[in-house]
Amino acid sequence: MADESQKWVLMVTAQTPTNIAVIKYWGKRDEKLILPVNDSISVTLDPAHLCTTTTVSVSPTFDQDRMWLNGEEISISGGRFQSCLREIRSRATDVDDKEKGIKITKKDWEKLHVHISSYNNFPTAAGLASSAAGFACLVFALGKLMNVKEDHSQLSAIARQGSGSACRSLYGGFAKWIMGKDDKGTDSLAVQLADEKHWDELVIVIAVVSSRQKETSSTTGMRDTVETSLLLQHRAKEVVPKRILKMEEAIKNRDFASFAQLTSTDSNQFHAVCLDTCPPIFYMNDTSHRIISLVEKWNRTEGTPQVAYTFDAGPNAVLIARNRKTAALLIQKLLFCFPPNSDADLNSFVLGDKSILKDAGVESPEDIETLPPPPEIKDPSQKFRGDVSYFICTRPGRGPVVLSDESHLLNPETGLPK
Amino acid sequence: MADESQKWVLMVTAQTPTNIAVIKYWGKRDEKLILPVNDSISVTLDPAHLCTTTTVSVSPTFDQDRMWLNGEEISISGGRFQSCLREIRSRATDVDDKEKGIKITKKDWEKLHVHISSYNNFPTAAGLASSAAGFACLVFALGKLMNVKEDHSQLSAIARQGSGSACRSLYGGFAKWIMGKDDKGTDSLAVQLADEKHWDELVIVIAVVSSRQKETSSTTGMRDTVETSLLLQHRAKEVVPKRILKMEEAIKNRDFASFAQLTSTDSNQFHAVCLDTCPPIFYMNDTSHRIISLVEKWNRTEGTPQVAYTFDAGPNAVLIARNRKTAALLIQKLLFCFPPNSDADLNSFVLGDKSILKDAGVESPEDIETLPPPPEIKDPSQKFRGDVSYFICTRPGRGPVVLSDESHLLNPETGLPK
Repeated sequence: MADESQKWVLMVTAQTPTNIAVIKYWGKRDEKLILPVNDSISVTLDPAHLCTTTTVSVSPTFDQDRMWLNGEEISISGGRFQSCLREIRSRATDVDDKEKGIKITKKDWEKLHVHISSYNNFPTAAGLASSAAGFACLVFALGKLMNVKEDHSQLSAIARQGSGSACRSLYGGFAKWIMGKDDKGTDSLAVQLADEKHWDELVIVIAVVSSRQKETSSTTGMRDTVETSLLLQHRAKEVVPKRILKMEEAIKNRDFASFAQLTSTDSNQFHAVCLDTCPPIFYMNDTSHRIISLVEKWNRTEGTPQVAYTFDAGPNAVLIARNRKTAALLIQKLLFCFPPNSDADLNSFVLGDKSILKDAGVESPEDIETLPPPPEIKDPSQKFRGDVSYFICTRPGRGPVVLSDESHLLNPETGLPK
Repeated sequence: MADESQKWVLMVTAQTPTNIAVIKYWGKRDEKLILPVNDSISVTLDPAHLCTTTTVSVSPTFDQDRMWLNGEEISISGGRFQSCLREIRSRATDVDDKEKGIKITKKDWEKLHVHISSYNNFPTAAGLASSAAGFACLVFALGKLMNVKEDHSQLSAIARQGSGSACRSLYGGFAKWIMGKDDKGTDSLAVQLADEKHWDELVIVIAVVSSRQKETSSTTGMRDTVETSLLLQHRAKEVVPKRILKMEEAIKNRDFASFAQLTSTDSNQFHAVCLDTCPPIFYMNDTSHRIISLVEKWNRTEGTPQVAYTFDAGPNAVLIARNRKTAALLIQKLLFCFPPNSDADLNSFVLGDKSILKDAGVESPEDIETLPPPPEIKDPSQKFRGDVSYFICTRPGRGPVVLSDESHLLNPETGLPK
């Protein structure tokens, strides 16, 4: 390897979105292969606001596989990383980069090591599905680097082995993770239901909720649920299959009333089976409950759903508004009830698509203080200042893309973080 | 009725306990007759600490049925009061009070009116099953007044029509409400599983949790659950029947491990079906969750359950300790995490059997501040001062009793509140 001609570094950088399930995945039938007990459906979130960017590189000078997450080196010796690396490597094909004069044969890939650098454009610990975007991006980028010929569905089955919900991040718009039947998991993969242009009226507002509690990891949580809940199997076998069909119809027809009803009730049922677990798992807190009550009352007053809500394994609310006008009203109501602490500036309190703020007539922290009390609130003097850390305004978004060379997170000559 | 000899007033005063379900009642199959979708089992709480006292009186001078609750006159025109009054009246028999020279025939009862005064020795609005004790006491006292020959089980089927859980308050110790099969509800009644002496080691600590939220009434809540939850029927038909059998065994054998496991998981499942309701019902709040986490961690550390927890339609925790020693440890841990506001005195912060406090080495508010941090707590600097309004220490208790004449809540000459 001392040969000068062997000092090349080849790299690919990709960007992959997060996704939020509207029919929830909770419970594995196979822990190692990550095979779920039911199908699930998700909305992909706009990567402009929430995404993972990953650079994968290969060089004969690398003497081991290494990875950096948000600039810090992390171990990839865990089974999930190793499964993804092994599966992708086994599908690598010949690479012939004429421009750079690099030739790698299928056989070479077995001996070559990779360097990976990954970066989330949102707080990793905020409970916003960073592992879904992360594993999807890893697998997608490695697939490009290694000239893997498999389509997105086949890649999704690999990403699934890193983090179950990652398989749904291989698509923009709306994706379905089909649970599959095969014991080896070959048919447990994601498909696209509709692309991001299909229902582009939707606006998504995420309330990142302050929490003093350490949450149960979803891996541990769902294992406990499978082992102890007496309601989970009924949910998985009797309830979810019907909801999946109805949700596919709702998405196809852009039927917001049905979409919202299914999304919210399925989120609640997921948290119900968490509560039916021994020991019980509480992901939602009083702030989450208050947001639900606000939305439920509003929807009832209007007679038809204006906003859907869904919560993953944490207290953050993901609110899906039927259109921009509704989203502006929603953000007004939310800002009234959950104003920022006095020292926060608006710019760091509402992230993402800030144009919604303008629609809502909120252009300064002072504007928040003069918002009218929402009619859904019984006691307008009761505000929950600081209970929401910040909001992110976003929308359904596109799937993975390869980024240009300027986006590389690794130094093109050394293959080490820039 | 102007006849002087007709000016007599006859009265009976009774005391009836509240009860807490350890296998929960949630959901009616008949709203009017109050017939449940599953059996339930409860522990009767010591009336020394939590009970209703009711005086019922009859006089030819009364021109209508009237009732006072905690001194305030309330309407009894509602269907539930009327059902209880009608059912009891129809079973009235001849009364011959030789001492007072009063004779009432079965036929007289149809025309005679009653005055009722009822008093709870605990805050009515605190969500401590006041309606269960109230209706049980009403029916029991009227039964005595009207010389009704029916046994406690038959009386329980009448009390059930006032408030479902009231039927279980006709017994001390442990009671089972058998759901029954008859459409008319004749076989939906309570039986005693064991009396209060059977398992007298148990100590019960109730944490009355401060709440800013108005709760869904249990009547409305369970109707919504029956109509919308896709998990309730599975719970009622598949889960509860097995739990009932196991709970009867656990009580019979004083098997605390099994008792605690069943009690806690059934409470959690009841709250799970509440969450699976549309709109979702949240009875527990962050304080409830913190109490559960504390108990769960402690139980796991010990390797075998020390304390069972159960929550009704509100945030209050009912904690059942295996014995007095455990109860003293429990109260130490609770007081550490949930100390009183600085202006509270210990006497109004821990009610009921205060001797537990002495066992816990807590005799002044200062003693609370010097308690050692429980090992279950991750961050001992984090206290939740004021989040529990007060504690009540109690134990399994006796069933209804008739009290002596000095206890009458109505003036024996006028039949009006004293």
